[in-house]
Amino acid sequence: MIGSATEHATFVIEWRFTVAPAKVFSSWSSAEAKKRWFSCDDAMVATEFSLDFRPGGREVNRVSIPGGEVHMFQGVYLDIVADRRIIYAYDMHLGDKRISASLATVVFEAEGSGTKMVFTEQIAFLDGYNDRAERIRGTEVGLDKLVLSLQEVNTPPQ
Amino acid sequence: MIGSATEHATFVIEWRFTVAPAKVFSSWSSAEAKKRWFSCDDAMVATEFSLDFRPGGREVNRVSIPGGEVHMFQGVYLDIVADRRIIYAYDMHLGDKRISASLATVVFEAEGSGTKMVFTEQIAFLDGYNDRAERIRGTEVGLDKLVLSLQEVNTPPQ
Repeated sequence: MIGSATEHATFVIEWRFTVAPAKVFSSWSSAEAKKRWFSCDDAMVATEFSLDFRPGGREVNRVSIPGGEVHMFQGVYLDIVADRRIIYAYDMHLGDKRISASLATVVFEAEGSGTKMVFTEQIAFLDGYNDRAERIRGTEVGLDKLVLSLQEVNTPPQ
Repeated sequence: MIGSATEHATFVIEWRFTVAPAKVFSSWSSAEAKKRWFSCDDAMVATEFSLDFRPGGREVNRVSIPGGEVHMFQGVYLDIVADRRIIYAYDMHLGDKRISASLATVVFEAEGSGTKMVFTEQIAFLDGYNDRAERIRGTEVGLDKLVLSLQEVNTPPQ
């Protein structure tokens, strides 16, 4: 039934980085850094981005595909432990429809001189918009861009 | 490790009411009604309550047990479909510790002249404070009080 149908799911993605937890954490905490990697498709054009990185603070990330629909991420931070953990809730909009609400937990652990990052998303898909595989793919594409953005930071200027 | 340890869990509670979905929904949407039932223990004394019931709106519910610690619920609404669905994220504090972050989905469905309400909580327990059984018990006690508050509403004045 449109209006109340809801399906719950969870997925976990583990990622490893060669840089220390503080460096990976800063890709999430800095608005400038996050803007560089936090979208799941290079064809998307960012039309709004704001990040207030503190418990209770909000984030808005609106992108559009030329000729296509607007995607909007609307988040609120629930828990932040510097260099170690970030928990936020968000809802995702496609055009004027809210298609999901989620709780995302990102944990950063030192592993040698690098970092293991564990991303856990607990989702409520709304009104038939269940696309767990696509959500995982989009998240992985975003995290690939996070890796690239860290490599840029690590590359000494030529 | 204190500072990043997180355990994820989910639980679902189904409840049936003899009144229609709109009536049950109003126990959540009205600050006055919610204040009557939304605490998990009669020994608790409410010291702060505020409810801004709209997507993006916040709720704060602070209670203390005489001689004991302060419990604080801090919520934000992500999705509201009148009489049908409410989704909110919240974090729970015990004293000055944040012990969990959750996504709660409440779905109301007509069943004959009554209502089936399905409450799903997806939780991240923080820093070893995992007490899924206690969270379920507390939620059930609150929902028992919701049932009682609806019976009061349904009882004609003497």
